[in-house]
Amino acid sequence: MRDELRVGMIGYAFMGAAHSQAWRTVNRVYDLPVRARMVAVCGRDESKVAAAAIRLGWEGHTTDWRELIARDDIDVVDVCTPGDSHAEIAIAALAAGKHVLCEKPLANSVDEARAMVAAAERARAAGVHSMCGFNYRRVPAVAVMRQLVESGRLGVIRHVRAVYLQDWIVDPQFPLVWRLQKDKAGSGALGDIGAHIVDLTQFVTGQRIAGVSALTETFVKERPLPAAASGLAASADGTGTGPVTVDDAALFLARLDGGAIATYEATRFATGRKNGLRVELNGSLGSVAFDFERMNELEFYDATQPGPEQGFRRILVTESDHPYMSAWWPPGHAIGYEHTFTHEMRDFLEAVGTGVDPTPSFVDALQVQLVLDAVTRSAERGSAWTSVAPALEQVAA
Amino acid sequence: MRDELRVGMIGYAFMGAAHSQAWRTVNRVYDLPVRARMVAVCGRDESKVAAAAIRLGWEGHTTDWRELIARDDIDVVDVCTPGDSHAEIAIAALAAGKHVLCEKPLANSVDEARAMVAAAERARAAGVHSMCGFNYRRVPAVAVMRQLVESGRLGVIRHVRAVYLQDWIVDPQFPLVWRLQKDKAGSGALGDIGAHIVDLTQFVTGQRIAGVSALTETFVKERPLPAAASGLAASADGTGTGPVTVDDAALFLARLDGGAIATYEATRFATGRKNGLRVELNGSLGSVAFDFERMNELEFYDATQPGPEQGFRRILVTESDHPYMSAWWPPGHAIGYEHTFTHEMRDFLEAVGTGVDPTPSFVDALQVQLVLDAVTRSAERGSAWTSVAPALEQVAA
Amino acid sequence: MRDELRVGMIGYAFMGAAHSQAWRTVNRVYDLPVRARMVAVCGRDESKVAAAAIRLGWEGHTTDWRELIARDDIDVVDVCTPGDSHAEIAIAALAAGKHVLCEKPLANSVDEARAMVAAAERARAAGVHSMCGFNYRRVPAVAVMRQLVESGRLGVIRHVRAVYLQDWIVDPQFPLVWRLQKDKAGSGALGDIGAHIVDLTQFVTGQRIAGVSALTETFVKERPLPAAASGLAASADGTGTGPVTVDDAALFLARLDGGAIATYEATRFATGRKNGLRVELNGSLGSVAFDFERMNELEFYDATQPGPEQGFRRILVTESDHPYMSAWWPPGHAIGYEHTFTHEMRDFLEAVGTGVDPTPSFVDALQVQLVLDAVTRSAERGSAWTSVAPALEQVAA
Amino acid sequence: MRDELRVGMIGYAFMGAAHSQAWRTVNRVYDLPVRARMVAVCGRDESKVAAAAIRLGWEGHTTDWRELIARDDIDVVDVCTPGDSHAEIAIAALAAGKHVLCEKPLANSVDEARAMVAAAERARAAGVHSMCGFNYRRVPAVAVMRQLVESGRLGVIRHVRAVYLQDWIVDPQFPLVWRLQKDKAGSGALGDIGAHIVDLTQFVTGQRIAGVSALTETFVKERPLPAAASGLAASADGTGTGPVTVDDAALFLARLDGGAIATYEATRFATGRKNGLRVELNGSLGSVAFDFERMNELEFYDATQPGPEQGFRRILVTESDHPYMSAWWPPGHAIGYEHTFTHEMRDFLEAVGTGVDPTPSFVDALQVQLVLDAVTRSAERGSAWTSVAPALEQVAA
Repeated sequence: MRDELRVGMIGYAFMGAAHSQAWRTVNRVYDLPVRARMVAVCGRDESKVAAAAIRLGWEGHTTDWRELIARDDIDVVDVCTPGDSHAEIAIAALAAGKHVLCEKPLANSVDEARAMVAAAERARAAGVHSMCGFNYRRVPAVAVMRQLVESGRLGVIRHVRAVYLQDWIVDPQFPLVWRLQKDKAGSGALGDIGAHIVDLTQFVTGQRIAGVSALTETFVKERPLPAAASGLAASADGTGTGPVTVDDAALFLARLDGGAIATYEATRFATGRKNGLRVELNGSLGSVAFDFERMNELEFYDATQPGPEQGFRRILVTESDHPYMSAWWPPGHAIGYEHTFTHEMRDFLEAVGTGVDPTPSFVDALQVQLVLDAVTRSAERGSAWTSVAPALEQVAA
Repeated sequence: MRDELRVGMIGYAFMGAAHSQAWRTVNRVYDLPVRARMVAVCGRDESKVAAAAIRLGWEGHTTDWRELIARDDIDVVDVCTPGDSHAEIAIAALAAGKHVLCEKPLANSVDEARAMVAAAERARAAGVHSMCGFNYRRVPAVAVMRQLVESGRLGVIRHVRAVYLQDWIVDPQFPLVWRLQKDKAGSGALGDIGAHIVDLTQFVTGQRIAGVSALTETFVKERPLPAAASGLAASADGTGTGPVTVDDAALFLARLDGGAIATYEATRFATGRKNGLRVELNGSLGSVAFDFERMNELEFYDATQPGPEQGFRRILVTESDHPYMSAWWPPGHAIGYEHTFTHEMRDFLEAVGTGVDPTPSFVDALQVQLVLDAVTRSAERGSAWTSVAPALEQVAA
Repeated sequence: MRDELRVGMIGYAFMGAAHSQAWRTVNRVYDLPVRARMVAVCGRDESKVAAAAIRLGWEGHTTDWRELIARDDIDVVDVCTPGDSHAEIAIAALAAGKHVLCEKPLANSVDEARAMVAAAERARAAGVHSMCGFNYRRVPAVAVMRQLVESGRLGVIRHVRAVYLQDWIVDPQFPLVWRLQKDKAGSGALGDIGAHIVDLTQFVTGQRIAGVSALTETFVKERPLPAAASGLAASADGTGTGPVTVDDAALFLARLDGGAIATYEATRFATGRKNGLRVELNGSLGSVAFDFERMNELEFYDATQPGPEQGFRRILVTESDHPYMSAWWPPGHAIGYEHTFTHEMRDFLEAVGTGVDPTPSFVDALQVQLVLDAVTRSAERGSAWTSVAPALEQVAA
Repeated sequence: MRDELRVGMIGYAFMGAAHSQAWRTVNRVYDLPVRARMVAVCGRDESKVAAAAIRLGWEGHTTDWRELIARDDIDVVDVCTPGDSHAEIAIAALAAGKHVLCEKPLANSVDEARAMVAAAERARAAGVHSMCGFNYRRVPAVAVMRQLVESGRLGVIRHVRAVYLQDWIVDPQFPLVWRLQKDKAGSGALGDIGAHIVDLTQFVTGQRIAGVSALTETFVKERPLPAAASGLAASADGTGTGPVTVDDAALFLARLDGGAIATYEATRFATGRKNGLRVELNGSLGSVAFDFERMNELEFYDATQPGPEQGFRRILVTESDHPYMSAWWPPGHAIGYEHTFTHEMRDFLEAVGTGVDPTPSFVDALQVQLVLDAVTRSAERGSAWTSVAPALEQVAA
């Protein structure tokens, strides 16, 4: 095993910038078996990608992702493009023997996701690793949530309550960016942010969503065509309008295979909620609640405490014995959104550097995709109950 | 119009105690066209009801509700019994020319509720009034929420997010009280607390739930038989167990007739949530959020404020120009749960005293009942989408 | 011992209304050895006090407090007047053999307070009881705070942090009500609300304030003369202005005799803070924090919990095993400001009914007065450190 | 002007690590007139500083700070050592023509600080810049606070309420690290964290602290001698104990020269408060409140809103039009503690790169030092009122 993993990243917009910050930082703060080297970034526009390389700290750049994948001096391909190109790139990269870190959602369809899983399974035999980038698993408070469930502190989980609330397209004049186009993004709020709460709740509960009843809605059906975009901000180009082809909001009920029942909501129309990823679990012995808008905190209710002293306690998840936090600052000194990616890269480097499969795997990500697909189908069929099969069976089939 | 309304109350447990506190207080703090006189309370056990009368401040007592209804010195019948007797008592009281205030849910079935509405319509012609006691409408913060919607401050309502979370039966050894028996209570969390969020959200949005997709669950299917109960507390009698015949939790998605989409959850298994009635509305111009555990507060997001200054503001709804609050204490001096009933009695006396129909009417309450019924049917049919007709059409039919 | 205590109340404004609600309610919700009977209310204006008697539920009324005190059918005198008349009334009532409940602050000066203590001590020998009405001791969350300290759960108390923040006179046009006149009120924010946090922190810590360094300020020195007032609201009479003769704000540092150090602030100029009585204690084993604007909650930090699980827990102080709460509603169903008085009357009736001295005693209240006096003197002498002697020594001297 | 500023940093512990992360990041996210180049880091232990250089991203290292200062390829000296060496290093660096960024507090005494100001004034004439690193000014929420004051949105400031609460030495067995030694640290909580709230409140109000009344306390007077330390964590070396020579807590009242009155508290004994830097301002037109434990939020009360809609609004200070935030992530995506340093370096590079004096200047930092000195003297003299002269007069004198 080399002591260095040479990374090539494809895409350099919002996700690319976040990943770059993480790649630059991860070996500065964690002791890891390997160091990441930022070899090249890839994008379609030569001048823009050249500027991005300099700004974001990549040694080189290219406009051809196939070339990037083919290079001998690249060990890891980091896929930060919109969802419609994930499958093609990731499968090709795996076939070329590159470890792949692919942004979420894994793909725009179950079929693509299945093909990616198959490619990952083939590559795995050759010691090639793959991982899907559900970064919110790496929020320390979320990791604590999982620990509490795993250690039995919550008892039997009865309820999951998950929402992901944003409001960046409430204005009907906000333009028709790629995230609002089905051919690019696959779906709207569902795949973009709903995917996060599906993965996160399956992760923290250790339970799989077994069935759903759903409805989706597109409140604003026509929007101005877009000019430039940056992060989630954008402006119109003034040439007219086009149809919104994805959901603005997706709501669903679910049963998990461990007996919990759940409500899920993903929306971009929750005025005033900026990045309101909230998850609450209620168990027979306790509860936890998390809100990404206060990402350094976890609320924990321990029903085994003396009755008159029970209450939701606000744990500041900034102690050195909290997951991921030994690398950072003294207690009470917050970390931010970008740290979730640094933690992601830490886990990726740790796993790949020691020859272990990182998680979430492509199979885990397929499981999410199967849920998204069931949501879509249930919504199309009058909210009819729609089962979700285990991904492993899907793969076997 | 007399300047006094003579009240007879049936039932003196949790609701009876809360109503008594309100009847005792309402004319002490509000200037109203009529005074309530607490003439008699009715219960089945002679010695207990006699003691209750003294304790709660009623002039007399009786063990026969039919006798109470027949008395000439009773103008108002206040029905605080479990749901299985609402229809019989209320219909008889209305037929006897008594104004009726009936606790929620109006009835244990749509058929009963329809019959009650018919009785109320007949009585109305004779100047006899009826009202259903959805007390949470009378939380000042909820009244402000309605004002904000009505005045257009939230714009078009896109999302409703409503939960009612309690945890008093998480322990499987908690006994099988009447609220867990279908023949007494009609349903479980659904009718007991779900009814409140159905009524409240229809009230504040001015929209009607037009269809639902639901699931319900009973986590603990067998419980010890109960001995005494008080409020929501109870103890087992040690003679064995019996089946729980109602839902522990009910979840549903909904569409409202004004275009909003919604999630609802009512549960008694949300460990650590004591009386977590929470409602959030997201509109095109703003949002509001309310949590009964902080009942003196309303969170309001005004998206028309300058961008960098937008935020959810915590309004302490304790100013003298807030609804109902002129009667109470200086700003920042909280009111409590029981005040919702004092406000309810205030509105009832104000309306009846001036010959106006109080709200929520029995028709409003039937509308809630129709939603509960649709939820039950959807849950029985694999969460299939189930329409809810307007109550007025139901009545006409 | 009679089973009834016949109460006469002097004053019927804000405090009088709050006390009346409590007298009306206390025997309805608590089982007590004696019942309070609301015999008469006293005020200077015949027609107003007559109306108040009817409205507030008193059997009779009078305009002469001396007559009230002299009546044979009065056992308890409840003093709800401004501070300038407390000493005269209370001393006369005690001399007449009446139990006395006197609103806070006990008096407008240390000398008056000392005389009242002396009168109380004399009366006590004859089985006549006295108490000062620091109602915030009776907030259930505050009572829990005291229990936690007493049981050693916080360890050694290091820090006390107490503020009482209001904003009702921020507007310079708010008129010169009696609370802004030194001859009526004794002092401004200091005696009105500062007295509460002095008493409350001494009560919960079990420590006495041993010395202070203070500053006071009057931001608005001239105000319009007042017309009518109600609660804390008021209007100007248009005839001119007069000088504000009390402090708008009082700040002080303190040392407590158990080793804690403290900051105190009382102000009526904290824009947006309506009734922000906040107290935090930090001990070697834990901390508690309370904010009256969320009076049903107590935050408790238990430093003996496992490190990664430590956090301030929000205890909803609404369980039946919390102090005072067995009388009220199910968990999560809030109580309000007025309940603090109902609890006060409960403790008073319980004590007097069983022949025990109620607390806080006049000596406890003198202790508060001595602190207020030291604050005033320190502020006059350039914040110089000013010791506060124990009240008992003062009394002895 | 070169397009590059070559930085040498002295000290690589907690502050050094934080500064390094900022130097590495600042030009990746901001467009600035100059780029920072991380040329060398200096520390006393050869092997440790060599490892730190590699880990933290510095091109070289040295064990001799005088050598570092003398090098031609260094433009900026970043002083991250304990306070006892600030004066010597900074004065030498300025004399050598290097721009200086010096951590706070500027010095361990007023005399040292005065000498540093004098050195800075001399250097300034030669185009050499200096700045003191009060990083909390660069929290975006704090910058918004200042904007609100400057634009008059709060009206006349009446109250300042500032605390900085930590708890990392509550355990008496926590060892005697350099921060607890007067010869190294100058003072305890006062200079370490009290300095931050002094600077921050002077910054946001635009007012100067004109006088103070203070008390300080050392709760634990003897502690184990320390072995290794990291951040604020440390372990004992088992060889015995030594005396704590600094304050554990410092409390003071203050008057600001614009008429506001204030309370300040800095302590390391506030169990459960991890980094509780809290500042509240109350003005005649509004209030703001900030808590670093929720650093992405600012609470703002606008008293010019319609009465019934007034409330403290929680502004998520994560919008691209908030100060410093255009460089970061979409709304609701938090930043963390380290970003305050990235913002600090941004402002430093922006100023130096354009030939403007950065702030806070050494004069601003001397002003803080004068307050700390007055606090110490007041505490020594029984909390006697102690005036604080303007730093500029001090310098002139």
